[in-house]
Amino acid sequence: MTERLQQQIAFLVEVDRLKTVLRQTVITDRSRAENTGEHSWHIALMAVVLAEHGPPDLDVLHTVKMLLVHDLVEIDAGDTFGYDEVGYRDKEARERCAADRIFGLLPEDQQHSLRALWDEFEEASTAEARMANAIDRLQPALLNSRTEGHSWVKHDLHRSQVEKRLAPIGEASDALGDVVRSVIEDAVARGWLRS
Amino acid sequence: MTERLQQQIAFLVEVDRLKTVLRQTVITDRSRAENTGEHSWHIALMAVVLAEHGPPDLDVLHTVKMLLVHDLVEIDAGDTFGYDEVGYRDKEARERCAADRIFGLLPEDQQHSLRALWDEFEEASTAEARMANAIDRLQPALLNSRTEGHSWVKHDLHRSQVEKRLAPIGEASDALGDVVRSVIEDAVARGWLRS
Repeated sequence: MTERLQQQIAFLVEVDRLKTVLRQTVITDRSRAENTGEHSWHIALMAVVLAEHGPPDLDVLHTVKMLLVHDLVEIDAGDTFGYDEVGYRDKEARERCAADRIFGLLPEDQQHSLRALWDEFEEASTAEARMANAIDRLQPALLNSRTEGHSWVKHDLHRSQVEKRLAPIGEASDALGDVVRSVIEDAVARGWLRS
Repeated sequence: MTERLQQQIAFLVEVDRLKTVLRQTVITDRSRAENTGEHSWHIALMAVVLAEHGPPDLDVLHTVKMLLVHDLVEIDAGDTFGYDEVGYRDKEARERCAADRIFGLLPEDQQHSLRALWDEFEEASTAEARMANAIDRLQPALLNSRTEGHSWVKHDLHRSQVEKRLAPIGEASDALGDVVRSVIEDAVARGWLRS
């Protein structure tokens, strides 16, 4: 085995730990919290199925790659709930340290290319990053809509908080923005979000 | 929302159930069995990182798509352990019914395109399908190598059974074949596989 391949395998074994990072959402059978590994699979598949609702020249592979790696920093930094204002204060610093260590396990060229995918997702300045961000926010909204608003109810959220958090979805895709509006209206009508 | 988008969303909510399908392998901290959703994420990421060890003209997006969808049939058919000879007798029939139902939730063009990815994986007749199959078999071997041979020990496997099961890895990639040989030699030396 070359040193390069050994580094790749060490990285791929290390990232297994993403399966132990728990999120605020529950899976649709409500048996347990979702973990970030399975969340990452779900959003990557969503990008494949929903690609047509992004811009016509969307690079699907690039979008999927971004979704597969963008949460790896949570192995060290944990999942920061999208509505946790305190947690968001040092989120960037915590995640940057995590990115240094985790992507640092790879051979140098791949350290840079995978780290660049993470940076691109965070900056949300490309069409692919905006679509990836949209899907990453749509997925927990879909899970909440199928679990009686689980994490919305738990954190007693107001519709305006969810509308603000999910606004990038409509900015990335008109069609997916329609899905979000319908999900929020339904959640308010059922009392899962404060109005 | 168009009917097409409603069908896509219904499919994407339904596939959440893959997170409740348990495999024979345990995750690296040995706290619990791995589920097929997080396994699918892990192998998709492996395909991105290890693509260079496949043939030079490998279509990475196609390989990743195949890995994201190829286990969806387990939602209905369950996971069949790679060494379960009885389970393999009706595996194909069970999975074909599952594929009809699950891919059938999608709009017609996507039913066909995603179903075709599953068929291609099963037939293993393209370079992408062979690489995807190799990675799908390498991943549990890596988890076993980091968990004292968990599922190998549990099922009291002989090295020849594992060598046969993992042979497609070396056929798809010389470099990944080297990884497997090293993993098996180590497992035999430590007593995790019978020799």
